[in-house]
Amino acid sequence: MITTKLENARKFLTEEELAGGMKKAEDAYHLVAGESGVGSEWLGWRHILASPNDALLEEISRHANSIRQDADVFIVCGIGGSYTGAMALIKALNPVFKNNGPEIIFAGHQMSGRYLKELIEHLETAKEDGGRKSVYLNVISKSGSTLETALAFRVLRNWMHNRFEDASKRINATTGPAGGVLNDIVAEEDYKKYVIPDDAGGRFSVLTPVGLLPLAVAGIDIQTLFYGAVSQFEELEVNRNDLLGYAAARYALHEKGYAVDVIGSFEPDLLGFTAWIQQLIGESEGKDGKGLYPALAAYSTDLHSVGQLIQDGPRNIMETLLVVEKPISDMAVPDSGSDDTDQLGYLAGKTFHEINKSALEGTVEAHTSGGVPVISIHIEKLNARQLGELIYFYELFTAVYVYMLGVNPFNQPGVEAYKKAMYRLLGKN
Amino acid sequence: MITTKLENARKFLTEEELAGGMKKAEDAYHLVAGESGVGSEWLGWRHILASPNDALLEEISRHANSIRQDADVFIVCGIGGSYTGAMALIKALNPVFKNNGPEIIFAGHQMSGRYLKELIEHLETAKEDGGRKSVYLNVISKSGSTLETALAFRVLRNWMHNRFEDASKRINATTGPAGGVLNDIVAEEDYKKYVIPDDAGGRFSVLTPVGLLPLAVAGIDIQTLFYGAVSQFEELEVNRNDLLGYAAARYALHEKGYAVDVIGSFEPDLLGFTAWIQQLIGESEGKDGKGLYPALAAYSTDLHSVGQLIQDGPRNIMETLLVVEKPISDMAVPDSGSDDTDQLGYLAGKTFHEINKSALEGTVEAHTSGGVPVISIHIEKLNARQLGELIYFYELFTAVYVYMLGVNPFNQPGVEAYKKAMYRLLGKN
Repeated sequence: MITTKLENARKFLTEEELAGGMKKAEDAYHLVAGESGVGSEWLGWRHILASPNDALLEEISRHANSIRQDADVFIVCGIGGSYTGAMALIKALNPVFKNNGPEIIFAGHQMSGRYLKELIEHLETAKEDGGRKSVYLNVISKSGSTLETALAFRVLRNWMHNRFEDASKRINATTGPAGGVLNDIVAEEDYKKYVIPDDAGGRFSVLTPVGLLPLAVAGIDIQTLFYGAVSQFEELEVNRNDLLGYAAARYALHEKGYAVDVIGSFEPDLLGFTAWIQQLIGESEGKDGKGLYPALAAYSTDLHSVGQLIQDGPRNIMETLLVVEKPISDMAVPDSGSDDTDQLGYLAGKTFHEINKSALEGTVEAHTSGGVPVISIHIEKLNARQLGELIYFYELFTAVYVYMLGVNPFNQPGVEAYKKAMYRLLGKN
Repeated sequence: MITTKLENARKFLTEEELAGGMKKAEDAYHLVAGESGVGSEWLGWRHILASPNDALLEEISRHANSIRQDADVFIVCGIGGSYTGAMALIKALNPVFKNNGPEIIFAGHQMSGRYLKELIEHLETAKEDGGRKSVYLNVISKSGSTLETALAFRVLRNWMHNRFEDASKRINATTGPAGGVLNDIVAEEDYKKYVIPDDAGGRFSVLTPVGLLPLAVAGIDIQTLFYGAVSQFEELEVNRNDLLGYAAARYALHEKGYAVDVIGSFEPDLLGFTAWIQQLIGESEGKDGKGLYPALAAYSTDLHSVGQLIQDGPRNIMETLLVVEKPISDMAVPDSGSDDTDQLGYLAGKTFHEINKSALEGTVEAHTSGGVPVISIHIEKLNARQLGELIYFYELFTAVYVYMLGVNPFNQPGVEAYKKAMYRLLGKN
């Protein structure tokens, strides 16, 4: 269950501002639910939850299991919405210092010859037992032409076909239903293909094969994740006051001229998830001169960095904190017996999570006293089900909140500007 | 050599604004050089470069080499300025997929029982040859009482003493000259100690043993790094127009009401370095209601995320880009012969760095056309020497620029606010 806590933002807003925001949020929700807003041809992220495709989930799980049996390394080649979702969930749920199944490596998310070169050296390094690494590759691109991904794919595909006789069985493509160069390559090479539905935009695609195949290969239970989102979809159809209140508060702060939304968490496991939210909200709202800059904070780490400026800098900063009530695992501070030279004996027996909670509460108290409105979003437990819930919660929140700004939440016209200049410089016809 | 490019910011400023800023920047520089500004008891970062302590550099190198001979894992236990510098340089200079010497693991930079638990499991996992991992630990804390670090140190120290008979030879402490609980522990346990000079604040300490010991253990040539900084110190004593111009431009943008400075790079290797800059500038300027929010961008990745908002969102965003002319290594786009199904044949033979440069130039063109002032800071080559130069360049830049705001660059009073509330909640006397 997701709950939102607005009381530390409310004190920066008047009753009228909040009531006005609430009314607007309800109207915006009806634009989403009624499919009557601008960009409503992009509501695939709702359709997949309204009518779950169990056969697809099963097919992906089966395929992923066969990859897990054989692969030492699974490369996910994508950028933007084609990798942030999978990266977020793998960082949250998988062990920190080892792999749960094949090693998952991201590529095609940046432009770096060094990275690709060292990646290939890594792939060519023998295993502990002296054998060759078994490598699989999943390229993810709706159009197939996104430059970073397409270039990395050219390099890695080349390498795969030189290295493995059965390369065409080891390469999977996740792309649009038809058209685009990736579909041409798939047809030519007979790669296995997964479809990104026409009505699902990149940043809303984590619960399509875009996210599901890498997650299943990483050993994450995609049925549980997906049905977490389905349950949140059903819940919010009837009970969405918390979500609308959150949208109303953020909208009111936006209208008052706040400039930055620091999106953070005291739970290190959720830092990939905040990056997914950053892309989701930022690319949706940042249009027509509107939007709050979505900055990321890793707490408590960043209290020793940007914390000073958040506390005492310009009063144009708001904060959104993801809070987990129960972490994946925990540890108690050990008792050091009679030796209390480090003067931490008063914390012995407390868990790190309990202490972290005091750091969170102390921070919220300090930041709000210092003039920073804080909204917190709480999940009970860090697991696949509740992260599935949180995915849909943030997708719907984003659509509602961005409609309130009078903006199309589903396009990204500004992304073309640099591409146009870059392709001209590269001499592309 | 470091060069700055201001032309893409200048067009957003008047001649008067720039000239006024330049005058103020010169005055601020003289506050630094004359040690006459507020906080001038914190200029240790200059003193160490004015009179290099070669004996210390040699001692650290020798000690680090002996650790490199024996260690499988080297744990750096610190937070804030006690780890960002080392992390930045290791990420920049060391291989992506393997270690150059012992595995370097950071701890004590967050509050996570799960992380510590899985870290200890990782340390207890046998090596490939079945043997025990040899572990060394460097705790870094000036006061010794920073909670995240002190708690992780309690856990890890405990583990080290249970695991290794010679634990006290494997643990090194980097702390203030005297006082503080860490000095008490060092005295009790006879750990090897390195001193953080009294006049070096955390975020200005990377070229003290704080950064130097971990870097030397990671195989980075600390003499070259340090003397890169020394050469930049000497250079800027006589030739600092570029630096002052940069400070003048950023100051003028601050005064015009810009809210966010997106600090980014198209060179993935420099993303740790941008986080070091974020802490350095953010914690220095964010006081008395002043400062630009230092947000980080990893390009070209984030053009597919916050790029939309930077291009088309509120016009209160400026951008600072670190540019590398020659990367550590590179790769050319392979020729695919007559098969041009991916339509990338026109790029065959170009290196990724060349293409990345077009992405950078296209982005600067698009962002400035869209209303975002862009300042770029260029280094010729990504190596220890030039990163040493860049460290001092940014330290001096920060001191000068923050003095222009009328703020003490060297304290961080706001960091106490959350600590006070947290310790009350934890029931500390």
